Amino acid sequence: MSLAMNKPELSAYLSQIFSQIINDFAIDALDMDGITMRLKVATRHLRPGGTVSGPSMFALADVAVYAMILSRLGPKALAVTTSSSMDFLRKPEGGSDIVARGRLLKLGRSLVVGDVLMFPAKGDKPLARATMTYSIPPN
Amino acid sequence: MSLAMNKPELSAYLSQIFSQIINDFAIDALDMDGITMRLKVATRHLRPGGTVSGPSMFALADVAVYAMILSRLGPKALAVTTSSSMDFLRKPEGGSDIVARGRLLKLGRSLVVGDVLMFPAKGDKPLARATMTYSIPPN
Amino acid sequence: MSLAMNKPELSAYLSQIFSQIINDFAIDALDMDGITMRLKVATRHLRPGGTVSGPSMFALADVAVYAMILSRLGPKALAVTTSSSMDFLRKPEGGSDIVARGRLLKLGRSLVVGDVLMFPAKGDKPLARATMTYSIPPN
Amino acid sequence: MSLAMNKPELSAYLSQIFSQIINDFAIDALDMDGITMRLKVATRHLRPGGTVSGPSMFALADVAVYAMILSRLGPKALAVTTSSSMDFLRKPEGGSDIVARGRLLKLGRSLVVGDVLMFPAKGDKPLARATMTYSIPPN
Repeated sequence: MSLAMNKPELSAYLSQIFSQIINDFAIDALDMDGITMRLKVATRHLRPGGTVSGPSMFALADVAVYAMILSRLGPKALAVTTSSSMDFLRKPEGGSDIVARGRLLKLGRSLVVGDVLMFPAKGDKPLARATMTYSIPPN
Repeated sequence: MSLAMNKPELSAYLSQIFSQIINDFAIDALDMDGITMRLKVATRHLRPGGTVSGPSMFALADVAVYAMILSRLGPKALAVTTSSSMDFLRKPEGGSDIVARGRLLKLGRSLVVGDVLMFPAKGDKPLARATMTYSIPPN
Repeated sequence: MSLAMNKPELSAYLSQIFSQIINDFAIDALDMDGITMRLKVATRHLRPGGTVSGPSMFALADVAVYAMILSRLGPKALAVTTSSSMDFLRKPEGGSDIVARGRLLKLGRSLVVGDVLMFPAKGDKPLARATMTYSIPPN
Repeated sequence: MSLAMNKPELSAYLSQIFSQIINDFAIDALDMDGITMRLKVATRHLRPGGTVSGPSMFALADVAVYAMILSRLGPKALAVTTSSSMDFLRKPEGGSDIVARGRLLKLGRSLVVGDVLMFPAKGDKPLARATMTYSIPPN
């Protein structure tokens, strides 16, 4: 199996379909082993006190797994998030981008499970982990 | 045990500390049994196709549980989300507000666990469920 | 919709297919609103110190949701657990049975989501909560 | 930081405190990066059809994370499971042991989060993933 969409193709496609939010994210790397997706942290992602908000971290994990699915199945793929689990491990400081490293644990015909670890842009202690499950509707 | 903050006190307090996001939410009801928190769905909460986004649902569940903690422990309470699990059950249509019904399953000294079911404003089939765990730092 | 199997039919069927473990469980109640399933706590379910083990609680939640699926879809139903989330809220004392109250949040064609709260047989403070997701293979 | 208990010390300690279940498990490897824990699959772990049961997989993930906590904090450590999330990815065949590879994502003063991937003894496609959270009671 190989990628159905490479990094520039996927970036262009996401910009087109997610025009509202795509300024928040950038794909740093993409291959068959997984994705590195960046949350470009701005004031709108912060909570009082300067931490990056939980919903922003959720959005990052969700889009990272969705992008991996598209990269494998191509732009026509339909996929909806059916469940997620997250653990918040350390306080994410607002002054730094957050980088998500995602991989697909399973790419089945009807279920896809992706695993994501999130780090500060310059740091190696994980801020959060997430597992996102997507359902692929029958054709 | 009784409420440390009632509905108007809590609404006022959330408006003050979460000025960025509080226009998104309203407390419909609050008592010792739990909370009913409303997501006032607007264009910024939608995904292409008109569904309410996953991060918006996450934010609703998170703020519902946080508000219950404040209602019990008062405005000085410190609490940080440590984990969450969510299941997305049905497609949330964008034309309707979403109503979260939350209750606290455990209010411990260091861990709080809250359970949330989310419904369309006019409907009784749940759209999503979430469990949010908060940690209370030692004083 | 009505039940495809009632309580005695389901109890008999579970005894037949799960002969190894069915001595551990009993159905206390079953209707369209949900199930009450009992873990008949014995020494083999205990950890040092006398608490009921986590795997025993997992098994109780899992069988409660599986039994609800069978009660709706009949004995021919195929269903496999695809994900679970659990929160352990209070220490379950070994001297008492544990009672699980389960309901189905979604009974879709390919995904079923069930929610379970577990209580001591005589007590109203929940010991644990669980959500179990089952996948129904395409026919 | 270094290990408070090495592999033989930890194996001996687990045999002593978990005499009921320790015949089910073996530590294959242990260092500061994590643990490899083996479920020695026997008939009692199987479901009808020959799959390894969900509760057995849960037990494996739980003991793997607990063992890592002991390896770091020593035999006096108190730790109780507070939450877990699991995803079952592929059918685990009963003829083969299951090997869990665990690592600690966070070892805090009051919360520990461990991540586990489970594989067939001879195979590189994951059967399941789990995250287990433990609470360390204040001294």
